[in-house]
Amino acid sequence: MSSDLYRVIAGIKPVSVEWRRKAKDYLDQLAIPRGSLGDLLAIAEQLSGVQETLKPSVKRKVVVTMAGDHGIVSEGVSAFPQEVTPQMVSNFVRGGAAINVLAEVAGARVVVVDMGVAADLSALAREGKILSYKIDQGTRNMAMGPAMTREQAERALESGIEIVGGLVREGVDLLATGDMGIGNTTPSSAILAVLSGRPVGQVTGRGTGISDQALENKIRAIEKAIDINLPDPKDPVDVLARVGGFEIGGIAGVILGAAYYRVPVVVDGFISTAGALLARALAPDSVQYMIAAHRSLEYGHQFMLEELGLKPLLNLNLRLGEGTGAALAMNIVESAAQVICKMLTFQDAGVDGPGI
Amino acid sequence: MSSDLYRVIAGIKPVSVEWRRKAKDYLDQLAIPRGSLGDLLAIAEQLSGVQETLKPSVKRKVVVTMAGDHGIVSEGVSAFPQEVTPQMVSNFVRGGAAINVLAEVAGARVVVVDMGVAADLSALAREGKILSYKIDQGTRNMAMGPAMTREQAERALESGIEIVGGLVREGVDLLATGDMGIGNTTPSSAILAVLSGRPVGQVTGRGTGISDQALENKIRAIEKAIDINLPDPKDPVDVLARVGGFEIGGIAGVILGAAYYRVPVVVDGFISTAGALLARALAPDSVQYMIAAHRSLEYGHQFMLEELGLKPLLNLNLRLGEGTGAALAMNIVESAAQVICKMLTFQDAGVDGPGI
Repeated sequence: MSSDLYRVIAGIKPVSVEWRRKAKDYLDQLAIPRGSLGDLLAIAEQLSGVQETLKPSVKRKVVVTMAGDHGIVSEGVSAFPQEVTPQMVSNFVRGGAAINVLAEVAGARVVVVDMGVAADLSALAREGKILSYKIDQGTRNMAMGPAMTREQAERALESGIEIVGGLVREGVDLLATGDMGIGNTTPSSAILAVLSGRPVGQVTGRGTGISDQALENKIRAIEKAIDINLPDPKDPVDVLARVGGFEIGGIAGVILGAAYYRVPVVVDGFISTAGALLARALAPDSVQYMIAAHRSLEYGHQFMLEELGLKPLLNLNLRLGEGTGAALAMNIVESAAQVICKMLTFQDAGVDGPGI
Repeated sequence: MSSDLYRVIAGIKPVSVEWRRKAKDYLDQLAIPRGSLGDLLAIAEQLSGVQETLKPSVKRKVVVTMAGDHGIVSEGVSAFPQEVTPQMVSNFVRGGAAINVLAEVAGARVVVVDMGVAADLSALAREGKILSYKIDQGTRNMAMGPAMTREQAERALESGIEIVGGLVREGVDLLATGDMGIGNTTPSSAILAVLSGRPVGQVTGRGTGISDQALENKIRAIEKAIDINLPDPKDPVDVLARVGGFEIGGIAGVILGAAYYRVPVVVDGFISTAGALLARALAPDSVQYMIAAHRSLEYGHQFMLEELGLKPLLNLNLRLGEGTGAALAMNIVESAAQVICKMLTFQDAGVDGPGI
């Protein structure tokens, strides 16, 4: 299987510079003061470069929400019990969660994936309500040893790629990532610390809202996980295996798949951007297919965005995950696509240009 | 007519504190880490307070785009010729402008109003493609005397209120403001300077993109207008008459109407927020019905938002007007409404709460 992974990684090409330039030239002719639609123009340019057209389409939208559990929760790193992961998956299936509501407003479908929830979700998978790519019943406690094997890490990445392949065959033209997993800010901070070289204390935040004391404990648990596992920052699969999570690997795979199939991908908050860091480390050009949805309130997220060189579209003090920020940002992305697809130029609209 | 204006102003009541509190209590029970949906929760609370319900509706959306011309353009304050105002109105009617495209994505209708364009738009009004509340063929040059009479200023305000009254009877439950008028950052800066007491040089920007020299000239023109007219900052109608614009008065009227009829109103960028400053000065409680769409790149906008105590939802480096930022923000507002209307609580979803 892993040969498929490395074939996809090798197949990721940069976004078309020529189509980006064509798009910029065209956008400069729209009947507006030049540049006055700000970030929408930058997104329109990116979409044109990704899809190699002046009429990019982002009509068929999917949020892929990846769920997994984490052995590290036994160290007391989260405010919520692990049972909440499968409970929230059930809530996603019922349509009662934030991601359902926000995706509906965005006109997006939510695809929920069991990447490794520590509960039996096979009934939901059989009913077609979730996809099952379950690797194990949660990762192992990374403070005691590797979170998963290298083979499991590769499988997590390949799962995301495979899911995107299926969605692309269905005609999906805009993807977004999301996550669910009690404790998953902990491996996300660990991945950020390892890949960026920043101290754990700087990149670790309160997640769902833990106390000062619990935060100290969380930082120590991450430091211990890194000390014990010694993940190799030059080998992203090793980092995922030693201090990552199944759903984080799945998200990285979704992003790699999006880049491979030339579909723009809206990256949600802290956990999704940890996946984006792994994707970029595996395939540097994949970053050109990413759109950063928002800046999360989770403290370390700013450093992730900085690492990737991405400017987030929204800053709404969100810190939920599930793909909620990405769903909100999809509307902005669609707006940008419509700007280049439908607006008239000065000439076509019969509007005079600037005189001075 | 003006008795109607002052009746409406007197009829504006604060947003319900009780319903805001009920909304907050309910939102705290949703199956998410408390507060983790950030600004969406604040908007949901506001919508509940405005509409006095836990199921606020923002389904029928209208952007009111007010157009007018400005005598001050003869001082060379804009990069574009005045003819662009009616040309852009034609573009709005054809559906080729940014506001058409963005409103469509938001699911909003655009209502274009001729408040005082210096061109004959009566054919468009007869065909029902725009509303005509034309007060005059543009304002007079405020660097030479008052932009309009006090009666005209009152008519501009009443026009906006009347338009909202009609829309509310049609069932509209979310309003947004927009503007079109070559030269209209100039009166907007003047209004900000007068109402805030800030120096003209601090609150005046490049509008559609003028040179350093043209900016110096624009600042001098505004200073001259204020020196000659001596608008009374304690009398907002006087400020509008002396250094305002017809479409700015119309926008202020839309906001007053929204507050009177208890409809939330999304305020666009620099020109719309100048209208919002006038509305707040006339009816302090009207600010509770406003939602600041975005922070414009036009330099003075930050001071307007500061004056009003409003936090903008978006920061996308927009500086176009037309209602474009407001249209983009409408989707966030609808998302907030759906959060309180449709999400499940911990109890209903069978999800455990935080354990530590």
